Amino acid sequence: MTLTPPPAARVGDTLSSVSTPSLLIDLDTFDTNIRTMATLAASHQIALRPHAKAHKSSAIAQRQIDAGAVGVCCQKLSEAYPFAAAGIASIHISNEFVGADKIAMAVELASHTALSVCVDSVDQVNALGTAAAKAGVKIDVLPEVDAGQHRCGVISVDALLELVDAIASQSALRFAGLQAYHGGAQHIADWTARKYAANRAADITTEFVRALDVRGIGCGVVTGGGTGTVEFDVTSGIYTEIQPGSYIFMDGDYGGIEWTGSLQFRQSLYILSTVMSANRPGMAVCDVGLKGLAVDSGLPRHTRWALGSHGPTLEYVGANDEHGMLSVKDNPDEHTAGLVGQRLLLPPGHCDPTANLYDNYVCFRADRVEAIWAIDARGMSR
Amino acid sequence: MTLTPPPAARVGDTLSSVSTPSLLIDLDTFDTNIRTMATLAASHQIALRPHAKAHKSSAIAQRQIDAGAVGVCCQKLSEAYPFAAAGIASIHISNEFVGADKIAMAVELASHTALSVCVDSVDQVNALGTAAAKAGVKIDVLPEVDAGQHRCGVISVDALLELVDAIASQSALRFAGLQAYHGGAQHIADWTARKYAANRAADITTEFVRALDVRGIGCGVVTGGGTGTVEFDVTSGIYTEIQPGSYIFMDGDYGGIEWTGSLQFRQSLYILSTVMSANRPGMAVCDVGLKGLAVDSGLPRHTRWALGSHGPTLEYVGANDEHGMLSVKDNPDEHTAGLVGQRLLLPPGHCDPTANLYDNYVCFRADRVEAIWAIDARGMSR
Repeated sequence: MTLTPPPAARVGDTLSSVSTPSLLIDLDTFDTNIRTMATLAASHQIALRPHAKAHKSSAIAQRQIDAGAVGVCCQKLSEAYPFAAAGIASIHISNEFVGADKIAMAVELASHTALSVCVDSVDQVNALGTAAAKAGVKIDVLPEVDAGQHRCGVISVDALLELVDAIASQSALRFAGLQAYHGGAQHIADWTARKYAANRAADITTEFVRALDVRGIGCGVVTGGGTGTVEFDVTSGIYTEIQPGSYIFMDGDYGGIEWTGSLQFRQSLYILSTVMSANRPGMAVCDVGLKGLAVDSGLPRHTRWALGSHGPTLEYVGANDEHGMLSVKDNPDEHTAGLVGQRLLLPPGHCDPTANLYDNYVCFRADRVEAIWAIDARGMSR
Repeated sequence: MTLTPPPAARVGDTLSSVSTPSLLIDLDTFDTNIRTMATLAASHQIALRPHAKAHKSSAIAQRQIDAGAVGVCCQKLSEAYPFAAAGIASIHISNEFVGADKIAMAVELASHTALSVCVDSVDQVNALGTAAAKAGVKIDVLPEVDAGQHRCGVISVDALLELVDAIASQSALRFAGLQAYHGGAQHIADWTARKYAANRAADITTEFVRALDVRGIGCGVVTGGGTGTVEFDVTSGIYTEIQPGSYIFMDGDYGGIEWTGSLQFRQSLYILSTVMSANRPGMAVCDVGLKGLAVDSGLPRHTRWALGSHGPTLEYVGANDEHGMLSVKDNPDEHTAGLVGQRLLLPPGHCDPTANLYDNYVCFRADRVEAIWAIDARGMSR
């Protein structure tokens, strides 16, 4: 029996007819963000390889490449499949992986796209090299160095040299440079403190690059950086490639940090939600909760009424599985029953895991749905 | 081009070959949990209508029905589609909804399954009644009363009577009883305080039922209760039906509350994860983060090694998008490099939104994969 829910939206619909909750992209703002980052990279002659973990959509990756990106990053091997299938010609796995299942995925991907991967253990290099040689594929390998995040990556030059030697001993692998990413630095709220952390990460990375350089080992690629630090990364003189992800969307977390410099991105990602119940003064309930909204970086910090809806300013104060609790700002006694059916735009606190909850982006310009883009790598975390 | 990731597991595989991260069900424990709840309901002659929002899987719904459940609850209309499509003959939407798109879904569902829905506004009743009459379908309607959660539901007898009258005026609708659920009470850690909150919710519900009774209006169904309060709900004398969801899986939150009574459920849901990097003493990194683990109710509180893996006790101390940060309990100096490739079982903090991240359950007994169950309502939040 074919019995499936009707689509949330169709191209050409007005925004007022989109079924909720839906994940919306404001295309004017999105396009500006894409251009802003592409211009920044180009003006510093640095390669832009956006991180696809933020959007998980080959349609968006293609737009980034059309604007000048050299390829994309993925964080997991399974995540890379839809991008390779869509013809993205260069994919960097900016993360470590272990196990025969993962090695097999890397080898399969490398037969469809120019694949580079990160490593931080000799065992990983040897397993990958053996499998790649057997399959007759070539894989570029970038050891990850710990640039201050204290997560993955080697922490000493000796350990880095062991990796470089291990890579050199594998005929199917090529040492292509270094991965150096400091995730924690991206989210430091104070602009000056963030600049300091970014510069410190660049300094640590420079030390690793120099240690190889004095041994006659050149790093073709030094890839790192993210949305929060990219304005500093591009002037560091060490990165040849930047890998920001969130800049296309922004979110509550990135929107809440200080942007003192000339680089500015604006919020383009929203959850469209409907008020579905309002029986208590000063309170209302909307139809998006934990199943449609990642809350690891906080609840939506601002709400605004969608075009055609109106009412008092509401604060999103609590998320249950499928309920969002709303409170009337500054007026606990306000009668709210009239708000039922009104529609809100909510900027998610964290864009990446929120996008991972939906199957599609509903992309709009002015009040019209212009495109529906599949989130084709949704849930692909292996 | 067909280029998709290989499946995470196949029936008959050993657990040690399952690709990670994967969402696992320990079937022995799961089966016991299913039986325990079915026995509880049957022994009190109360209908069991498990909440399918916890698992979003028609395969699990069928097993609950096979064990005696009268049907399932869904929290959203779109969520109900896979269950209706799979032949689940009775579905209750335990939530309000608004808008022509939602009304159309309710009407379509009602032509495929015995549908009941919740309402808490007269406008909702009128819109639903008009559409149902036009389509020639019958829908059972249960006004929701606020049993103390202060979320949805009417808060006065007058408002309830208005709803009952509105339902009576619609030929396609039938007043079927009341919905009374107190979500907040489920998670009160102290057993005695939880019992008090459950009893208070039952008292509030009883007042509404009596107010109808004295007017000659009988409530055929009074549905409510959840995993945390069900041991009190079944003896309250007011509910005719219980709607627990999480009991099949349990989670960090439910595992962390006090279970003083005779009713006991055990954890059956785990994320299988692999240690993928370990370059710093006392620390390691596994391959599941925010994309595979809902953290709204906290990080995994316990980790244990999967069959065949071993090492020191690790604490899951931080989640990035695709990284889980692990700390060696009580030994910050322990050398951890040997843990790379070892596999952990992590109980999620909150089962419902975690299940909503995966496409399948990998179900095991002893060390073998016995079944793969699709999470066919994943992401269906409209």
